[in-house]
Amino acid sequence: MPTVYPCVPGHEIVGRITRIGKAVKKFKEGDFAAVGGLVNSCGVCPNCREGLEQYCDNGFTLTYNSEDKILGGVTYGGHSQSVVVDESFVLRVSPQVDLAATAPLLCAGITTYSPMRHWNVQRGQKVGIVGLGGLGHMGLKFAHAFGAPTVLFTTSPSKSADAKRMGADEIVISKNDVEMQKHVNSFDFILDTVSAGHDLNVYLNLFKRDGTMTLVGAPPKPPIVEIFGLMMKRRQLAGSGIGGIREIQEMLDFFVPSTESLPISN
Amino acid sequence: MPTVYPCVPGHEIVGRITRIGKAVKKFKEGDFAAVGGLVNSCGVCPNCREGLEQYCDNGFTLTYNSEDKILGGVTYGGHSQSVVVDESFVLRVSPQVDLAATAPLLCAGITTYSPMRHWNVQRGQKVGIVGLGGLGHMGLKFAHAFGAPTVLFTTSPSKSADAKRMGADEIVISKNDVEMQKHVNSFDFILDTVSAGHDLNVYLNLFKRDGTMTLVGAPPKPPIVEIFGLMMKRRQLAGSGIGGIREIQEMLDFFVPSTESLPISN
Repeated sequence: MPTVYPCVPGHEIVGRITRIGKAVKKFKEGDFAAVGGLVNSCGVCPNCREGLEQYCDNGFTLTYNSEDKILGGVTYGGHSQSVVVDESFVLRVSPQVDLAATAPLLCAGITTYSPMRHWNVQRGQKVGIVGLGGLGHMGLKFAHAFGAPTVLFTTSPSKSADAKRMGADEIVISKNDVEMQKHVNSFDFILDTVSAGHDLNVYLNLFKRDGTMTLVGAPPKPPIVEIFGLMMKRRQLAGSGIGGIREIQEMLDFFVPSTESLPISN
Repeated sequence: MPTVYPCVPGHEIVGRITRIGKAVKKFKEGDFAAVGGLVNSCGVCPNCREGLEQYCDNGFTLTYNSEDKILGGVTYGGHSQSVVVDESFVLRVSPQVDLAATAPLLCAGITTYSPMRHWNVQRGQKVGIVGLGGLGHMGLKFAHAFGAPTVLFTTSPSKSADAKRMGADEIVISKNDVEMQKHVNSFDFILDTVSAGHDLNVYLNLFKRDGTMTLVGAPPKPPIVEIFGLMMKRRQLAGSGIGGIREIQEMLDFFVPSTESLPISN
């Protein structure tokens, strides 16, 4: 019989460093630190070399329940009493920040921050966020922080007050065709955070030329895509997964007063 | 009863200018000239201002069977004895080129040239062309001319010799899973010219990170798209339609010795 390892989850880890190895340079004992969804990758493929370990061609190691290529067995996540992680996959955390509020940045945060950075969300662009769940509320806050007028799409009118509070300039109930029609040909970027099945085409029609819709959740059933809608405005449908270590650090530093942010050696 | 106009098709027009209006500046009688799929657009929307009349927000006028907003009735295409076109939608054609070979550039040519320029196909990128029909053979020639190693995907082994002759570095029979698997995680750009129904996901899996698949034909039934395949490598699925006047001129000039190419006033 194969060995069965218990699974200890947890991939949004924030805590204090209790011990360091002799070769560790970036951290000292007592520092605050964080670990996200990955604890290792090949380090040599083009994606790893560019700091995009989440797209490692040779297979990354997930923070929990993944084959541990160094110690053997499987990796144990943040709900363990302690974890041992290579320093190149450990993030610096400022003692100035709220640690509990920092934890979800490590997965939900970076999953929305990374695509908005990649597709260059900024002031003057019109941005949409689909869904106000674990990912969506992060995306909304980032888009607002980047200075983009942001529309929150939801099927739940009861979420409007929260969305406003988190920075939405407008809330659109996506089941309301009249409301949706008002936004045709107007968006630069929409981040779709909803992994339940839904019609993507009603959003694709809202883009102006060269707009991009990026999905960060995969619906259980692959969606149907109207190609004509893509062709008529050279629109793009894309996907994105979490983010690399360098970018996670950039995101964490984004919330810290500038005197606190440190150069990134990774 | 509404007036019924006869339809005279033809949207890849090359010929000689027989008469010009008083205000015409770019042409004189006797010049070779060409007209593509469009003869008018609003001229004031952001897309028209950027020379991308094919994405006009207010509705362009097709070369044939489209409402003629200036003369009334409908527009008549290239199979008429003559056509009258605003000079800003007329292309310059060098007397050095083969006129018959120039005509298909006006639609099939620009439909493949434009997306490859937009997504920056160039030397050092690995490019795929799906299909070797009216569009595909043009796309193949352009990709080869731009210096990109180019793979032609076809379901018809009998097209291999033609594909080689037109510049394909490799031909892959897309029904052969073993051949397809050899190209996983390797493409930067694939232009899909096939408007018959087919599985897009087998191509999406061939991209490396940040690769783009652009469709220039809309299948009759909207395809199913595996989002997980997009997410794992931040891939993009896009559409593109013909090209703008400025870009058509650039394409026509691409084939003319450099001493012949003229500055573009449009």
